[in-house]
Amino acid sequence: MPQGQPTSIPDDGLTTRQRRTLPVLAVHTGPGKGKSTAAFGMALRAWNQGWPIGVFQFVKSAKWKVGEEHALKVLGAGDEGGTVAWHKMGEGWSWVQREIAESEDAAREGWEQVKRDLAAETYRFYVLDEFTYPMHWGWIDVDEVLDVLAARPGSQHVVITGRYAPEKLVTAADLVTEMTKVKHPMDAGRKGQRGIEW
Amino acid sequence: MPQGQPTSIPDDGLTTRQRRTLPVLAVHTGPGKGKSTAAFGMALRAWNQGWPIGVFQFVKSAKWKVGEEHALKVLGAGDEGGTVAWHKMGEGWSWVQREIAESEDAAREGWEQVKRDLAAETYRFYVLDEFTYPMHWGWIDVDEVLDVLAARPGSQHVVITGRYAPEKLVTAADLVTEMTKVKHPMDAGRKGQRGIEW
Repeated sequence: MPQGQPTSIPDDGLTTRQRRTLPVLAVHTGPGKGKSTAAFGMALRAWNQGWPIGVFQFVKSAKWKVGEEHALKVLGAGDEGGTVAWHKMGEGWSWVQREIAESEDAAREGWEQVKRDLAAETYRFYVLDEFTYPMHWGWIDVDEVLDVLAARPGSQHVVITGRYAPEKLVTAADLVTEMTKVKHPMDAGRKGQRGIEW
Repeated sequence: MPQGQPTSIPDDGLTTRQRRTLPVLAVHTGPGKGKSTAAFGMALRAWNQGWPIGVFQFVKSAKWKVGEEHALKVLGAGDEGGTVAWHKMGEGWSWVQREIAESEDAAREGWEQVKRDLAAETYRFYVLDEFTYPMHWGWIDVDEVLDVLAARPGSQHVVITGRYAPEKLVTAADLVTEMTKVKHPMDAGRKGQRGIEW
């Protein structure tokens, strides 16, 4: 629940209405849970606006997002709301061989697809799930990502999730939340739980 | 994405299978965004498990959750997945007069309904949205909440969201994430944005 009012009115020559449709770059980072989950929660709002949604999973961990994937696909296929396209590393990319899944090449190819979709304004809301890792590992150049995002046409919102968000990305983002782990059941020896973790 | 394995195996006499279905009490707190959003994202997983979901909104802010509400209701009404019941303060509680919405009495009555539903095992996944506030304000006794939650029957998962989570609640919870605000568009003078904030 956003609290209160903006603390200042920017001298950007835009009306409030124009500012309401400015494209947002959001980053969910930090060691705690909820980074991807909150991004998929945001996708519910985008869906409700009737926007086409593109999800790009940059780290293969199929087990952990099946619930969100199924739910968003059901929503996207229904009579109401926006559409949902779900791209999985090494699975959803038609131009990537399965053999190079989880590799540097797969991540780069995924990013090339995102660039094409941004240029074509294919979606209005993008979840680049765990996209911080290929940047953190040096597979994808952060400066190039920032240039592409800064130049993206129209009003395309982008949410990037994952630990170790590069400092430059945090600086460039409009909305940054750090999820801090205060306590996790695994600390108490529990394993991942059905319906909670996936 | 949970990382790695539990650091210890608890001496609780339970099997891994039993531990996987232990009821979870999760808390999303802190000043950052994503507390409720991540809870609704978790609800997607619960829905995918076919679980009945109960959402209880303890602070009236209808504008900000309409996207999630619509999406989850559409999912809950479909052929697949679990059901979704959405209770709004001063609106969803049949036994509460509209006149006392947002009041201490409404919050207490909401909590009484949660208690009845927990006792009856009405739902398997509960979102007690912004439930920290009535506890923080002293309207609802934290000790009573903890007693009720500790004694809840079956495998009912509960996620509580909101700032100022009471220390005792954090101690009792299995999973606690603090959302820290690193940066928010309102700091730059932007107002809440369609499809992002609601």
